[in-house]
Amino acid sequence: MSSGKKITVVGLDADDTLWHSEVYFERTQRRFDELVGRYVDGDVDVHQALDAVERRNLARYGYGIKGFTLSMLECAIEVTDGAIGVEELQQILAAGRSMIDHPVDLIDGVDDTITYLAESGYRLVIVTKGDLHHQEMKVMASGLAGRVERIEIVAEKDVATYRRVIASMDVPPEQFCMVGNSVKSDVLPVLELGGHAVHVPYHITWEAEHADHDGTVPTLDTIADLPAWLETQS
Amino acid sequence: MSSGKKITVVGLDADDTLWHSEVYFERTQRRFDELVGRYVDGDVDVHQALDAVERRNLARYGYGIKGFTLSMLECAIEVTDGAIGVEELQQILAAGRSMIDHPVDLIDGVDDTITYLAESGYRLVIVTKGDLHHQEMKVMASGLAGRVERIEIVAEKDVATYRRVIASMDVPPEQFCMVGNSVKSDVLPVLELGGHAVHVPYHITWEAEHADHDGTVPTLDTIADLPAWLETQS
Repeated sequence: MSSGKKITVVGLDADDTLWHSEVYFERTQRRFDELVGRYVDGDVDVHQALDAVERRNLARYGYGIKGFTLSMLECAIEVTDGAIGVEELQQILAAGRSMIDHPVDLIDGVDDTITYLAESGYRLVIVTKGDLHHQEMKVMASGLAGRVERIEIVAEKDVATYRRVIASMDVPPEQFCMVGNSVKSDVLPVLELGGHAVHVPYHITWEAEHADHDGTVPTLDTIADLPAWLETQS
Repeated sequence: MSSGKKITVVGLDADDTLWHSEVYFERTQRRFDELVGRYVDGDVDVHQALDAVERRNLARYGYGIKGFTLSMLECAIEVTDGAIGVEELQQILAAGRSMIDHPVDLIDGVDDTITYLAESGYRLVIVTKGDLHHQEMKVMASGLAGRVERIEIVAEKDVATYRRVIASMDVPPEQFCMVGNSVKSDVLPVLELGGHAVHVPYHITWEAEHADHDGTVPTLDTIADLPAWLETQS
């Protein structure tokens, strides 16, 4: 294990940190609201109904598009009391497939920043939560895999998970810095372990990822500011 | 890295090696055939149609129950040309949920064998393919996690994956032995690396897991025979 306090390993969240993701969920959910909304009374909130179905299925399905699609189908039938048509359900299935098939769309600044960090000698590890198969496909399609030492696809981003990931990189927590768009999943558990963490907000945050914090979390406007920030930490 | 030729690490496949899995897929598929069969002409083979939809979605969905459920829904609509009812689709969704919710059902002999191996000093690693979230839930529910050093949930069981897994256990391939019900996924890639592998057949094998081999693959009737077999290898 190397010693010293300088940050040597950078952990990178993937969805909405390296590439756009939530924006496609929101777009699909808007189409869902419109499609299903035609079959319900004006006072029924389809959006809220889907949030509720997703929440009750989260322990069963975990994160990712397949579970989201199954929850949309379940909600569409339930909230319309079976009045939704088979054709609409087929459209929901197709919407899920096109989300999965969508090309990976890197966020501005990511490509240059990752190249710069790799060339500056930082060891990089992607730490992402969600569907194993789909996340692996996205990492491969992103073109970033060659500049990254490891890819850790995990079921939950909690203290225990980060302890394992940091140990697997063979550094003490104070040499590890996690970067991501979720204070709850990317920042707080790493700080609790004595590591570093930086919040790079995405313009939309999934409801389940909201977290309260005291305002002292290091925050960057864009991942392009990361190399300069890392230098100030040594 | 420890040296010598004795097997010190045992890799264990999970579905249909440690616990029953395929039997639940088959049961659900029989119900699907019956449910959807009512809506198609006598000469349409619903079973074959579902196999075809699963195969074309495999690269998109990967392995696991969520993808299987989505393929059943897609096939039900397609093969009946939209004539299937919303109520039947709801039943298919419910069948998928109850597969996920089904308690883990250990195969006879597994519990005692795992205890015996762990107490005899073998280091154990579960190497399983499929849905990350669901596999983690099953490992936890199985009660085996405490006797196993690592759990590797992987997207594909190929030579590159096993090279990485064996390296992560810090042993040379000749000290590693993989045990599983699939010659294709559990045996052949490990033998190719110079490791050991044992085939413990399950009474049903998923079509995609069939592999030709020359009949020289070590095969055990039951996992209960594994400790004695391992002793003959040292």
